[in-house]
Amino acid sequence: MNVAVDAMGGDHAPQVAVQGAVQAVSELDMDITLVGNRDTVEKELALHLSTGRISICHCEETVRMDEQPLKAVRQKRDASINIAFDLVKKGKVDAVVSAGNSGATLASGVVTLGRLQGIERPAIASVFPSDGGYVVLIDVGANVDCRPIHLFKFGVMAHAFARSCLGMKNPSIGLLSIGQEGTKGNELVRMTRRLFEESPLNFIGNVEGRDIFSGNVEIIVCDGFVGNVALKLSEGMAEAMTRLLKAEFEDSLSGRAALLMGRRSFKSFRRKLNYEEYGGAPLLGINGVGIVCHGGSSASAIKNAVKLAYEYVNNGLLEKMNEQLNQLRINNEQI
Amino acid sequence: MNVAVDAMGGDHAPQVAVQGAVQAVSELDMDITLVGNRDTVEKELALHLSTGRISICHCEETVRMDEQPLKAVRQKRDASINIAFDLVKKGKVDAVVSAGNSGATLASGVVTLGRLQGIERPAIASVFPSDGGYVVLIDVGANVDCRPIHLFKFGVMAHAFARSCLGMKNPSIGLLSIGQEGTKGNELVRMTRRLFEESPLNFIGNVEGRDIFSGNVEIIVCDGFVGNVALKLSEGMAEAMTRLLKAEFEDSLSGRAALLMGRRSFKSFRRKLNYEEYGGAPLLGINGVGIVCHGGSSASAIKNAVKLAYEYVNNGLLEKMNEQLNQLRINNEQI
Repeated sequence: MNVAVDAMGGDHAPQVAVQGAVQAVSELDMDITLVGNRDTVEKELALHLSTGRISICHCEETVRMDEQPLKAVRQKRDASINIAFDLVKKGKVDAVVSAGNSGATLASGVVTLGRLQGIERPAIASVFPSDGGYVVLIDVGANVDCRPIHLFKFGVMAHAFARSCLGMKNPSIGLLSIGQEGTKGNELVRMTRRLFEESPLNFIGNVEGRDIFSGNVEIIVCDGFVGNVALKLSEGMAEAMTRLLKAEFEDSLSGRAALLMGRRSFKSFRRKLNYEEYGGAPLLGINGVGIVCHGGSSASAIKNAVKLAYEYVNNGLLEKMNEQLNQLRINNEQI
Repeated sequence: MNVAVDAMGGDHAPQVAVQGAVQAVSELDMDITLVGNRDTVEKELALHLSTGRISICHCEETVRMDEQPLKAVRQKRDASINIAFDLVKKGKVDAVVSAGNSGATLASGVVTLGRLQGIERPAIASVFPSDGGYVVLIDVGANVDCRPIHLFKFGVMAHAFARSCLGMKNPSIGLLSIGQEGTKGNELVRMTRRLFEESPLNFIGNVEGRDIFSGNVEIIVCDGFVGNVALKLSEGMAEAMTRLLKAEFEDSLSGRAALLMGRRSFKSFRRKLNYEEYGGAPLLGINGVGIVCHGGSSASAIKNAVKLAYEYVNNGLLEKMNEQLNQLRINNEQI
């Protein structure tokens, strides 16, 4: 197994990409191809012990965070993210991990590898931990202006993904809205609801923002604008609450003593809230395995994203997604 | 001062409305008019010590949570929320508090009292606590499908509100989006951005979901769908994190000891995360003072909402909002 890591993507490139890659090959039986400027990446790599399992694929360009994704991907054919997906196309690597411009990662995946049959709009899924399981939120940023059929297909893809990689048999699907009643929500939600109701999927109706944490539903569907706001909000809130908790305890003598005594519990709590622990978010709907990481990812987040890519490839995500989509297609002409 | 409380609104009506009212008059020098079915409300009120400061205004109907707001408000003229706003119109009470259908509260306020000059779409603002201050999120559920001018006016109203009631001099305004770059976001955000940039408001550009907790911005503008998802998500996450924290600590002996020793800090932490402590959300843009509460509000939440109403009326919210809007209007023809 060989995973391409976009060494030029993200706020702390190439340091964290290189460090994450070094950590990943020390923990997993795999190879990594760092895609980026050879000089810069080599210099960074020289700071670590060589394992012989990391190679560099040189490129001249990179897509910046503020660039229009599709335009940049088409014009900069030599950008790191394009080269990374080219390696997948040529069969040289099995998956791509990038902390760069997520729109560009999506666009490059689509342009280079194409889409799965029946999927017009690939999406980014985020897997949240929940009481004893997972909640999949889709889309978290790939598609900001959606039509009902797009949202419906997000649900279809998440269904296939959850069955393939999360061990869910018949995952429940909810439509993110602002009230459980069918009359509530915006126009997009009201129209999408009908498509789900007419499908063979395990659709449970509208859900609310709070249900991301309630354990009442396994897949939550929304457009990429709302999903991205929700994702960033929960990250920001986790950080703010950790700060607040610490401040509360440090405010009194008994609190400080409690903090000392319960330091292991605190650490475990903080780890569970740390989005970096969960690696990246899978790109669903492209004809290949791609993982999108947070722009501010640390080395540990990159390592965890590489681990996810390794797992998805090993689980045969792509073949299983295709199988699931085919099966659903037999039962529903919309898909 | 007399505040009308919709006794029939919310999941736990009329109990919590009555209890909240009883608590409020015991803490503040004010009267409350409970609007609801006289028999039901009287029965509930009989469980408490009489203070003589609570009266009942009878009505036959109520707007249910699953009803189309505007339609219900127009058809059920005798619904509790309509009667409550009628009391404001007649000068018998100074403000309205309701935990019922928030869309209906808005619609009733608009139909009965009308809008402030220049405001087409009143909105619901939610005031989040932040490091040493507040963050105003607007709109959190009144308007699900918006045009750019609506979002711009939400910012204008929040500016006027923050200056009038939160002691902010020139509050910074951010537009909720999915990346700080001007090119990011959906079509609505990109078009709204231009209106803010051309205005005299202290607009700082796009902000992300995480900024609700970062302390980097004082007013965050979004449409009511996104805002409501964000609000519910943060409530749900606060509850989930409190549960998770407790579970982590109860998992070990040292953790349990720490929990015991730091119980005061824990309690203070939980109180800060409890949305009920912050009362309700002000309805901005109607020609009167209205506070919308969570449907699941407790008595304590209702009491805090009544306190907010008391405070806003005492501060002259309405007059100051009109003043601020007039001043802005002189400087910008859009307003």
